[in-house]
This record gives sequence, C-alpha cells and structure tokens, in this order.
Amino acid sequence: MNWPIVAMLVSLLALGVAAWLYAWVKSQPSSNPDVERIGVLIRKGANTFLGREYKILAIFVAVVAVLIVLFLPRPFWKGDIGENIMMAISYIIGSALSALAGKIGIFVATIANVKSAEAATKSKNLSFMAGFRGGAVMGMAVVGTSLLGVAGILMLTGDATAVLGFSFGASSLALFAKAGGGIFTKTADVSADLVGKVELGIPEDDPRNPAVIADNVGDNVGDVAGMGADLFDSNVASMAAALVLAMALDGNIGINTGMVFCYAAIGLLSSIIGILFGRIGKNGNPSTALNKCTYITTALFAVLTAAATFAFSFDWRYWTATIIGLLVGTVIGLASDYFTNDEKKPVQLVARASRSGPAFTILSGFSYGLLSSFPSLVGIGVSSMASYLICDTISAGNTDALFGISMAAIGMLSIVGMIISNDAYGPIVDNARGLVEMGNLGEEALEITDDLDSAGNTVKAITKGFAVGAAGLTVIALLGAYMAEANAALAEHGLELLTGFDVMNPVVFFGMIVGVAIPAIFSAMLIMGVDRNARRMVAEIHRQFEEIPGLKEGREGVLPEYDKCIDIATRGALRELIPAGLVAIAVTLAVGFIGGVHAIGGFLVGNILSGILLALLMGNAGGTWDNAKKYVEAGNEGGKGSVAHKAAVVGDTVGDPFKDTAGPSINTQITVVSLAASLTAGLFATISLFS
Amino acid sequence: MNWPIVAMLVSLLALGVAAWLYAWVKSQPSSNPDVERIGVLIRKGANTFLGREYKILAIFVAVVAVLIVLFLPRPFWKGDIGENIMMAISYIIGSALSALAGKIGIFVATIANVKSAEAATKSKNLSFMAGFRGGAVMGMAVVGTSLLGVAGILMLTGDATAVLGFSFGASSLALFAKAGGGIFTKTADVSADLVGKVELGIPEDDPRNPAVIADNVGDNVGDVAGMGADLFDSNVASMAAALVLAMALDGNIGINTGMVFCYAAIGLLSSIIGILFGRIGKNGNPSTALNKCTYITTALFAVLTAAATFAFSFDWRYWTATIIGLLVGTVIGLASDYFTNDEKKPVQLVARASRSGPAFTILSGFSYGLLSSFPSLVGIGVSSMASYLICDTISAGNTDALFGISMAAIGMLSIVGMIISNDAYGPIVDNARGLVEMGNLGEEALEITDDLDSAGNTVKAITKGFAVGAAGLTVIALLGAYMAEANAALAEHGLELLTGFDVMNPVVFFGMIVGVAIPAIFSAMLIMGVDRNARRMVAEIHRQFEEIPGLKEGREGVLPEYDKCIDIATRGALRELIPAGLVAIAVTLAVGFIGGVHAIGGFLVGNILSGILLALLMGNAGGTWDNAKKYVEAGNEGGKGSVAHKAAVVGDTVGDPFKDTAGPSINTQITVVSLAASLTAGLFATISLFS
Repeated sequence: MNWPIVAMLVSLLALGVAAWLYAWVKSQPSSNPDVERIGVLIRKGANTFLGREYKILAIFVAVVAVLIVLFLPRPFWKGDIGENIMMAISYIIGSALSALAGKIGIFVATIANVKSAEAATKSKNLSFMAGFRGGAVMGMAVVGTSLLGVAGILMLTGDATAVLGFSFGASSLALFAKAGGGIFTKTADVSADLVGKVELGIPEDDPRNPAVIADNVGDNVGDVAGMGADLFDSNVASMAAALVLAMALDGNIGINTGMVFCYAAIGLLSSIIGILFGRIGKNGNPSTALNKCTYITTALFAVLTAAATFAFSFDWRYWTATIIGLLVGTVIGLASDYFTNDEKKPVQLVARASRSGPAFTILSGFSYGLLSSFPSLVGIGVSSMASYLICDTISAGNTDALFGISMAAIGMLSIVGMIISNDAYGPIVDNARGLVEMGNLGEEALEITDDLDSAGNTVKAITKGFAVGAAGLTVIALLGAYMAEANAALAEHGLELLTGFDVMNPVVFFGMIVGVAIPAIFSAMLIMGVDRNARRMVAEIHRQFEEIPGLKEGREGVLPEYDKCIDIATRGALRELIPAGLVAIAVTLAVGFIGGVHAIGGFLVGNILSGILLALLMGNAGGTWDNAKKYVEAGNEGGKGSVAHKAAVVGDTVGDPFKDTAGPSINTQITVVSLAASLTAGLFATISLFS
Repeated sequence: MNWPIVAMLVSLLALGVAAWLYAWVKSQPSSNPDVERIGVLIRKGANTFLGREYKILAIFVAVVAVLIVLFLPRPFWKGDIGENIMMAISYIIGSALSALAGKIGIFVATIANVKSAEAATKSKNLSFMAGFRGGAVMGMAVVGTSLLGVAGILMLTGDATAVLGFSFGASSLALFAKAGGGIFTKTADVSADLVGKVELGIPEDDPRNPAVIADNVGDNVGDVAGMGADLFDSNVASMAAALVLAMALDGNIGINTGMVFCYAAIGLLSSIIGILFGRIGKNGNPSTALNKCTYITTALFAVLTAAATFAFSFDWRYWTATIIGLLVGTVIGLASDYFTNDEKKPVQLVARASRSGPAFTILSGFSYGLLSSFPSLVGIGVSSMASYLICDTISAGNTDALFGISMAAIGMLSIVGMIISNDAYGPIVDNARGLVEMGNLGEEALEITDDLDSAGNTVKAITKGFAVGAAGLTVIALLGAYMAEANAALAEHGLELLTGFDVMNPVVFFGMIVGVAIPAIFSAMLIMGVDRNARRMVAEIHRQFEEIPGLKEGREGVLPEYDKCIDIATRGALRELIPAGLVAIAVTLAVGFIGGVHAIGGFLVGNILSGILLALLMGNAGGTWDNAKKYVEAGNEGGKGSVAHKAAVVGDTVGDPFKDTAGPSINTQITVVSLAASLTAGLFATISLFS
C-alpha cells in the first residue's frame, strides 16, 4: 500500500466533509436583521484581525524563509542550495496551510454563530448542531490540510527534514495565532467586564458596551483560529517527529513510515464518523452528546488500527504504544476535568474559600492548579517510559524506542479532528449566546444557548488537558528528532556522535537550567501584554462613554464605536506578542552558540519540564476560577452580588490570561523552540564556545 | 595542619562570641513592666511551639533512627551493623544540634526584642544593636554548632557518609522547623490581619486582637528558628556534599578535605569580624549598616582564602570556583532586591496596577515573580558550568569538576553566619515594633523601630535570594554525592556503574518528570494548610470578640485569651505539615522502587529544576506584593484606604504564604529528598522494577 497516497485521499475526503458541513450550516435559516447586523460586525472584526496578523506574519515568514535559504539545513556555501530552497518552500507551505485552515475556521464560525442563535428560537438540537457542525468544519479543515501537507511534502521531497521545515512553518503561524489571539481575546474580555460588569453594572454582551463586539471577535480569533493553529501545529509536529524517526528505522520510506500515515488516516476517518453522531434529543444534554462523539471516535480508532496492524503486519509494539498514548490522553483529560468541573470538590472549595475574600480565592485556586499537575505529569512520564520500554530492542540502538514515544504522541493526537470540533463548538455557541442577548431573541433562546455554552466550557477542560499531554509527548519525541538531526550534522564533520544528554555534563545542565526559565519569561510577557493592552482599551471605553451622548443611557439609535476597540485589541496583541517570541528564539540561539548541541539538548528538556508544569498550572487554575465564579453565580455560597461573588470575579479575571493567553501559548512556544533547535542543529554542531 | 581541629576551634570561638553577644544583650536595661509582660507572653508562646514541635520531632527522629539502624547504609543482614548504628547516631546528633541552635536563637531573640523596644526610647543605635546582636547570636550559634558537628563527626568516624547522615538529621529538623514554623507564622499573620485590619479596622499589633501574640510568636518561630534551621541545613548539606567528593578525590582525608574545613573556618571568622562592625551613627541608615557588615565579611573571605590557598598550597582552581559562588550569590541577591525593592520599577508598577483592582495586583506581581527567576537561574547555571569547567581535568574522571561545583556552593554559603545575623535581626526588630506599640512607648520610639523594621525587610530580600541560590548549588553538588554513593553500592554488587544520568534514558526521564511535580504538590499542600488553619483561627478570634465582654471596646483590664490562638496555630501547623512531608518522601521511595538509581537521579534533577523555579517565583512575587502594599501605604497611588490600597492588601495576603511558607520550605524539601536519595541509593541499586 502507498500509505501517503491513502492519507492524502482521506484528507481530501475530510475536506469534502468540511464542505458538506459548511453547506448544511449555510442552509440554516437566518432572518433576524439585528442578529445578522451584529454577526456582520463580528465577522468583519475577526477578518480585520486575521488580515493584519497575516500581513505581519507574511513579513516574518519571508524573513525566515530567506534565512533558511541561506543557512538551513546547511549554510549555502557548504551544502546543496537546492536542499535549502526546498526547506524554505516547505516552511512557507506549512505556514500558509495553517493560515488557510484558520481562515476557513473563522469564516465558518462567524456564520455558524448567527445560525446557532437563530436556531435557538426553534429547536435546541438545531442550535446545537449549527454550533457543532460549524466547529467540525474547523476540525476537518485543520486535520485535512495538515495531513495533506505532511504527506504531500514527504512524497515530493522524500526527506523527513523537509517535514520538519513544514512543521516549523506551522509553528511560526501558531505562535502568532495562539499567543496573538490569546492577547486579543483576553484584552477584550477583561476590559469589557471591568468597565461593563464591575464599574457600570450592565450585563455581559450589552450592546452599549464599546468592547462587546471585540469580545465576541476575541472568542473567534483566540479560541477558533488560535486553538486550531495550535493543534495544527501539535499534529504536524508529532507527525514530523514520528516520520524522522520512522525513516531512520526504515532507512527510507518503509513499513514504519507507512504505519504513521495509516494510523493518522484512521484517526481522521474515525473523527469523521464520530462527527456524524453529533446530535441531541429534544431535552438531551449537550455535554453527553459531545462526549459520546469523542468516545465513538476513540473506540473506532483503537479497533481500526488493530485491524490494520493485523492486516498489514505492522509492528504490534508500536500499536501498543499508540494505544497507551490514547489512554493516557484520556486520563489527563479526565484529571483536568476533575479539577475544573463544578460538580467536583476543587471548584466548590474555591467557591467556599471566596467567602473570606479574593486573597483566598487566589490561594486556593492556585494550590489546586499546582496539585492538578501531578496526575498529568505522572501520566506523561508513565506513557513515555512504557512506550519506550515496550518498543526498545537492543539491536536497533534506541531509535525504535524513541519511535515508540512518538507513536504514543500520534495516538494521543489521533482523535484531534474530534477534539478541534468540540473545542471550536465552544466559542461558536458562546457567540450565539451573545447574539441572542444583543438581538433580544427571548428568554427561552437565552436559556438554550446558556446550556449549550456551559457544555462548551466543560468539554474545553478535557480537550485542553489533551492538548497539553499531546504537546508534552510530542516535544519528547522531538527531542529524539533533534538528536537524530544533530548526529547527522556531527557525522558529516567527523565529530563524536551524541548518545544522549547527560545531566552531569555541566554544559547540558547549564542549558537545562536556562531552559527552565523560558516558559516562565514567555508567559510573564504575555500576561503583562494583556494587562497593558487592557489598560489602553479601558481608557478608550471610558472615553466613549464620556464623549458619545446618550450611550450610557442606552438612547435609541446611539451606538458605540465598536471598531475602535477592535483596532486597539488588534494592534496591541501583535505589538505585545513579538518581544515574547523574539526572547524565546534569541535565548535558544544564545544557548546554542555558548554550549553547542549538548547545551541545546538540555535547554529543550528544561523547556519541556517547566513548560508542561506551568501550562498545567495556569490552564487548570484558570479553569477552576472560571467555574468557581459560575458556580457562585448559580446561587451557591451567597450567589450573585455576594462577597464570595466579588472574590470569585477577581479569581476569574486573574484566570483569564492564565488559561486563555499564557497557558496554551506555552505549548506553542515549546514546539517552536524544539523545531528551531532541530533545524539549527547543524550550525551548533560546528560553531559554539564550549562543548 | 589538622584542619578539622582548626575548624572546631573556630567554631568554639564563634560560640564564645555568641555567649558574649548574649551577655551584652542581656545587660541592656528593661524596666517597662507592660513591655516585659508582653515579652514574656511571646517567649512562652514560642517555647510552647518549640516544645510541641520538638516532641513530635523526637518521635519522628526515633523512628527514622531505627529504620537507619535496620537498613542504612546497607540492610543490617548484609552489612556491618556497627556502621548502621554510627549512621543513626550521626543522624540523631544532626537533628539535635540543629534543634539546639534553634532553641538558642529563640531564647535570645525573645529577650532581644524587649531590649530593642526599650532602647528605642533612648537611642536608635542601641535599639539597632540590641536587634542586630540578638540576631548575631543566632548566626554564631547556627554556624558554630554546624561546623563543630560536621568536623566532629568526620573526626570520629573518618567517613563522609556519616556526614550525610548528620546532614539528613539536620534536614529532617529543618523540614519541621521551616515548613511548620512557616505555617504557624502565616496562620497567625493572616488571621490577625483579616479580623483586625480588614473586619474591625483596628491597627496592627493592637493588644485587643487575640491573635496578636501568636503573630509575634510566629515571627520568632518562622523567621528566627525556621530560617536558622533552613540555613543550618543548607550549610551542613553543602559541606557534606563537598566532603563526600573531596574524600573521593583524596582517597581519604587529605588536602582537599582540609581545604573545605579551612574555607569554612575562614568564612566563620570573617562573619565574626563583620558582626563587630554592626553599629549605626545617630541618624544613620540601618540598611547601610547591615550591608556594610556583609560587604566586609565578603571581602575578608575572598582575601583570607586567597592567602590560605597560597600559604597551604591548595588548588587555585577550587579557590576560583569558591569565589565564583560568592559572586554569583551576590548577583542573585541583588536581582531579588531589584524585583522587591520599592525604589525600583517592579514594585511601583504593581502598586500602579492595583488602581485597577486586586486582579491586576495579582497578575502583575505574579508576572514579575516569573520574570525574576531568569537572572537567578542563569546565575546558577553559569556558576555551576564555570566552576565545573574550571576544575575539570580529564585524569580525575569528573569528580574534581563536581567538587568544583560543591566549592562554589561553599563559597556562596561562606558568609552564612553574617546572613543569618541579618535575617534574624528582622523578626527581632519587627517584634520590638510590636512591643513599642502594645506598650505605648511613644511616637518617637515607634518611628525608630519602624525604620529598623523596614531595613530588615529590605535586607531579607537579598538574603532570601542568597538562600535559594545556595540551595540550588548545594543540591547540584548533592547530585554528585548521590552518584558517588550509588556507585559505591553498585560496585559492591558487581553491577554496572553510573557515569551520569542520560535524559534520553526513559527511566531517567520518567523520574525527572515526576520529580518536577513534587515541589508543586508540596507547596500547594503547605499553602492549603495555612488556608485551613487560618480559617480555624479566624473562627476562634470571632468567638472571643463575641464571648468576652468588653474586649472589642478595649475596656481596661480585659485581655483576650492569647494562648488559645497560639494553641490553634501550633496544632494546625504540625498537623498540616506532616502529610506534605510524607508525600515528598513516599514519592521518592516509589520512584526508587519503580525505576531504581537511574530514575532517582532524574527525579532529583526534576525536583531541583522545578523547586528553584517555584521558590524564586513565590519568594519574589511575595516580596513584591508585600513592598507594593507598603509603598501604597506610604502615600503613593492613593495611599491608605484607597482602591489601590485594598487591592495591594489582597496581593500581600496572597504573598504571605508564598514568600514565608511555601517558597522557603521548597529549599528544605529538595534537600531532604536529595539526602534521602543518597542514603537509600544502596537499596535502590539492587531492588527496583525497571532499570
């Protein structure tokens, strides 16, 4: 079987399904002019942001592409310039495809939100389906284009290093999309809440609030396009790592390379089938419906890969590693759910602590965030150790064992199509809820969209846990890929090969301890960026309420200048993001030039360890605070307006940039650094101060 | 020269100086009966806590001693039981000497506070000197007993492993003293503030507040006894690591072992001389006076060790490593100062952010905490790499290089006598300020003690940075000691020796990723302990204000039941501490039995990396919040009672358990785990599931 071709065919099928789902969404009725008008504002805002972002990104990509042509994988005066050009092209295609997937996702999400809002006046199931199928377009688009791209690049070049270049392109885009989108969305969210809810006491999504459209745009650019780019990136990176190692095992494209594509195609197929089950009964529970789809996909994947392994004589050890990854992903998801679900103790105890004031909300939520890292870290540790040991044979060096780890990552990410669908569902129904409120579609519709929205939040916690776990395993596999790349360069210069990274080697240890600092600095810079940007937007909201007559009173026909706020969020997000990204890359290069390939190995490990810890801490603490606030608002611990509520709002505000800006961006930061290290391994193998 | 004997003589000199300083403090007048009465309450409270703590500790030490006799360094049926008994005795002596030093420190501090308060009515210099010399007694007692103990144990047994046992004893005590004391002090502090300042609006240190004595007791048990035990522990651990490696280099006690004692003795001598300079002019600045002593000690140490190295032909490479440690310690201290000093940008910007409410206080302070980890991590990384590379020779394996790292730790800790003196000065003058307020000693005395107190806070940030840096280098050196111990056991069983810990080995990686979680869990459990315990105490304070007639109104002769609050803080601290300590040790054993000596190596690295990161984050964020609050209270950003002030108080309350409970306890937790690993290396070398 020519598995890359099979994978490309399944990808095209997924894109076909995406088109069909889009047609279905598009065919749903939308008649309310108010809702339509606001929907257009949101769509335009999102496109403005994407346009500006992509323009800056295009410059960035162009600069990096030139650098690649000059220096990577080998300086042009030493190597084959054709290889460098191929790498640069792969890089450009990686970023372009990821951008395209994001654009498709936003395009559909900003239609589906209107359809879902409108449908809520008629049927809960239709409203749900508009949201879910809108999200599924994104899921199919991301996985379809990424698999198509990876398979295509490998077919064209026959070189796994080019896939690394493709992956680096996807990561560059993800860094902008996730971190930039994260700053945008939280700037708008925090500012809208601060002036609207806290100062003026007007409800969420009140159309008088100048930041309200920016807030809804933020859901789309942060949670749809940003999250999609993030998982596009993880998915491609896990495949790139697996392919580098598979081709090292096979000698060239062989049975293991084929297996990677076969499993990825089966994962995508399973997601397609799972998506078709996405519907609820008249009074059904939307969370159950979403989870049902996930379980169907998971079970299908396990069964079909087993059948394929039997039929095509793949190695059962790698199948086992894949399934271990899948299972551990589920465990990590469930652990995240435990810490952030309002039916469980942590959220309820944080709500209880809020009775003593905001300091106790923060302390207890932060403590649960720290605790929540334990099951996930142990899960990642156990799955990487188990898949390594299962796949280890003495004869093959340790490449087979590392390949086992990369297959565990593939397993964890196999159902990513389903995960993105669930995840993109969230912001769509969140938007729909806003549109129902702004368009006055009635109490019943509001109740329905509230219910759909809350299911989105619950499912989000699980998928976020998944994303961190997947990123963790992927970067471990990338460590193996990095070593393979560095060794290729070392061998070329007749230097001693790496056999590993010994922490007792001071150069490795130096890299490691500096690496630990990077996710910390990166997330601090993003949080500070949100903070600074929110300050600018709050000033603008104040100005509008002061200078536009009749706005505060809600006089008929008086509208705020929504686009000013969108503009501030856009400019600020891009401005605040760039230094953070540059620091991460600059320190990587500095460590490489000081300590060479050994130091970079340690540096990557330090990055991974502190990155996973901080991502879990921030993501889960943020989720706990968010749901503790909602739990109080549902009438517990004194309900709305109580001391506990005020304290819980503080927790939620702290949690917003934790969980939606810094936490998830750390994944991307680690991946970018890992890929940058793999690509520059050749340089640092020959040029460095110590080592 | 018989350097251990010289070190013991200098230790005795230090104890003599301590006695002289004590006599000086004791000879200062104290005539005010109110102050004396409250002073007695504080003294009794502190002794109650110490008594209970030591009672529980005695049981703990007895159990561990029995386990040591049975199993360590080798199971009694396999090895020499005499060796095991010797180890158990060293362990008991280690914990007993550390306890004694803590007891001495508390004894003097609870006299010096009264003297300093009384002196404030007459002379600023006398008030300062009472505080500083009281603190110096602690400094001399800690360093004198620890050096005496280490030298004595080595003289008696001739075995560096016994010194590890001694060090483990000191660490066990430090865990109780630092974490238990940390929970005690913050329970009392948070509860007293919550009911006193926030609910009732009565000033700090108001004698009507039932928690006020507990709060002052907390300063002593947390900051005097706890911090003393922590630095006793670090100091002994750094010497133990250096001695294990020196004796491996020398074959037995030789020139390098001698150098360790020589440098330690010179450090102690330099501290003694530095202390004698501790005085201020009539209107002098107390911070300047404290820093002057530190600089004198540092300079003396550098010069005298150079002279000794020349005179006794020690290896200049090790001297260089020692001085690098000293310099980097200073850099780390200055970096901590930058992030927590109210004359610098971070504190001022956190105060500014507080104008937008508590969420922004938290976000900005947390971000600076994350950023603050960078210079210290780079400092630790550079100093360990530089000292390794300077001391590395191919002929000696890498033992000489690891010994270089341990000498950098010795260098960083060389001035520990001075550091403890500065640090213990803080709580004494803090107490004195309370006594001046409670005893109504007048406005002028209050101003003087306020000034002395604020100098204590400034110096504290620097010394805390030092402590984290020293702990970091020490545990890196302990990693070398662990490998040496594990290899001794492996050699005995004819197994393959460790040459390092390769992160690409899945068992090492598993240990590492689990190790990352431990400081996170440990600190979360301590923070939650403070939270739960403060809740109990707040309930008790409410009960007293309700049930004791005339208390709230401050009727003459009506006193709260101070001892009830002390009792709650004491019981709670010990109850909350034990599970946290057990989890850390249980996971260490579990990882050892699963993955053997390789996994434990990784586990220690994971512990070190996340421990240093979290300790810096929590310590510095806490310091920033504390000083931002004080900055606002000094009249900036709206001053007392403003929105910014309320927000800054929330930041300070969050920061309290961060900086005084969890952050500094992490040091001790890492050291305990490292030593437990070294001692049990023999067991895990032969018994484990994988590896």
